[in-house]
Amino acid sequence: MAYAWNLVSRPKGSPTMENFAFTKMPDRTLRDGEIRVANSFFSVDPYMRPRMDEGDSYIPPFDLHAPMTGAAVGRVIETRTDRFKIGDRVSHFKGWRDVATLAAEDASALPEGDLKDEYFLDVLGTIGMTAYFGLFDVAEAKPGDVVFVSAGAGAVGSLVVQIAKLRGMTVIASAGGSQKCEFVRTLGADRVIDYKSPGPFEEKLRAAAPSGLDVYFDNVGGEQLDAAIGVAKRNARFAICGMIGMYNSDAPIGFSNLFNLISKRLQIRGFINMDFMARRGECMAQMGYWVSEGLIESHYTTFDGIENGPEAFFSLFSGGNTGKALVRLAS
Amino acid sequence: MAYAWNLVSRPKGSPTMENFAFTKMPDRTLRDGEIRVANSFFSVDPYMRPRMDEGDSYIPPFDLHAPMTGAAVGRVIETRTDRFKIGDRVSHFKGWRDVATLAAEDASALPEGDLKDEYFLDVLGTIGMTAYFGLFDVAEAKPGDVVFVSAGAGAVGSLVVQIAKLRGMTVIASAGGSQKCEFVRTLGADRVIDYKSPGPFEEKLRAAAPSGLDVYFDNVGGEQLDAAIGVAKRNARFAICGMIGMYNSDAPIGFSNLFNLISKRLQIRGFINMDFMARRGECMAQMGYWVSEGLIESHYTTFDGIENGPEAFFSLFSGGNTGKALVRLAS
Repeated sequence: MAYAWNLVSRPKGSPTMENFAFTKMPDRTLRDGEIRVANSFFSVDPYMRPRMDEGDSYIPPFDLHAPMTGAAVGRVIETRTDRFKIGDRVSHFKGWRDVATLAAEDASALPEGDLKDEYFLDVLGTIGMTAYFGLFDVAEAKPGDVVFVSAGAGAVGSLVVQIAKLRGMTVIASAGGSQKCEFVRTLGADRVIDYKSPGPFEEKLRAAAPSGLDVYFDNVGGEQLDAAIGVAKRNARFAICGMIGMYNSDAPIGFSNLFNLISKRLQIRGFINMDFMARRGECMAQMGYWVSEGLIESHYTTFDGIENGPEAFFSLFSGGNTGKALVRLAS
Repeated sequence: MAYAWNLVSRPKGSPTMENFAFTKMPDRTLRDGEIRVANSFFSVDPYMRPRMDEGDSYIPPFDLHAPMTGAAVGRVIETRTDRFKIGDRVSHFKGWRDVATLAAEDASALPEGDLKDEYFLDVLGTIGMTAYFGLFDVAEAKPGDVVFVSAGAGAVGSLVVQIAKLRGMTVIASAGGSQKCEFVRTLGADRVIDYKSPGPFEEKLRAAAPSGLDVYFDNVGGEQLDAAIGVAKRNARFAICGMIGMYNSDAPIGFSNLFNLISKRLQIRGFINMDFMARRGECMAQMGYWVSEGLIESHYTTFDGIENGPEAFFSLFSGGNTGKALVRLAS
């Protein structure tokens, strides 16, 4: 008996339980070239929110009345291909379900050994790629730079803080509330800003970076983006990775500092980790080394049981967790 | 008797005559290494507006109770240097006055011949550099691209339209009112949008560029920038050159399409023509060739007499003129 979370309506504003239906998936025998995977973890990510809407996003919108999709890890339990045998560990994109049936070419073989399943949904998966390529390639960050990363307690942000410190940067990070700020400090951030504390964010950022920013790694958009434009040094580079603060609203966002784009010759680039898929190996090799040497750490908030999929997803927007949000499936 | 326009107060919002005072400049004998220049033209430019405010802009703010400055062209009438003789044509930065006294090294020798004085304040001066380097370097525009340029009837925009067409691009331009739109059509633009016509600008832009934009050359910011983000193709490049619509206001500007930065992997770069000063010769050679072959044309709105300096400047913000605004001095 396989179950999945279907999308049954498109949210207006914040997603709610009404947009989802827990659905029994039809049984069917495996076709030639397919594998069946018992998922151990699936990922919930902010980018899934814009995919719930109609129209253009990174990738086409989720279909209505069909299972949600997303990154997942598991082991092969049935196979009709030479490429995988039963017991192989794989990652794939049929998340939001306990058992996935898919073409063998849509699964990636994962190495065995000490690396935990969940790493491949985080530091060794697309989250790691987002942090790595966003920081080093898109924002062209280099040793000595002053880097500001928003949502520093989040999945991507918590990795950006760590790898920026490893590469000799000064790191300023934002997070919401004293607990998360303390967590970000333990990751090595030089200065941490509680964006929920009273007062204009720009003043706090200026106090944290009195000589200005070389790089901004943006996970939130809105007020923090505007502030970073105001506090940037000349020729600063911005990697625009996410705008979680703006996903659940259609209201226009007000910007006051845009003239700085010109006067400071800023470079602002949006990016998507998928664009770096061809260089995935470079990132996995570097991050895999750092993880196994204990130089960086993966941090999770784990939700147990497929039934908590939507709750795990909602937690991304309520700011309720630190690090990567994952759903762990009963084994 | 030399006269100049002094800045006597900093504008709140739009500049007015009260911010200026027409002032007799003190007579003084020339010092060693100096020249005296009778200006034939001086330039008024949008970038002067943010320089009237206190605080950071491109360059330091204008001093209060001192003459305004800006690009000017004229001929040497007195000299205490070997570098220039009487009658030499020069450009320099002591505009907003009829006679300029300056160090010889702050003046550039201009070629004699058929090229008119005013060309060196436009297509062969910083306006030409802004169009040339903004389009080809900052926005990385190439033959076949669909290019949108705002303020296509303005000094920079009217050159961008022409050089983009010369290099085989499809050009969409915006302008205000039917007369200016007609002017932009005569420059060769493939499609022209009247931004003053009723309805959302984004719909008009989408209709003009149904397959999307590769490049946006931004002279205005605000609604047209937001619309261009919405209509951009994946991997489109934006050169942010000016935000004239935003110079006279402190109000935050609302943006609705910012998520497209990520989903479309947009690259947005602010720039200043001064950053390309070392490559000025490349631009002058190319633009000089195009001008003398009749392949591009300079267009002016000329204000006669130093007394009309402020009026010429105000006209930049009221949308009252086409092409470059210049003040011609009595000879």
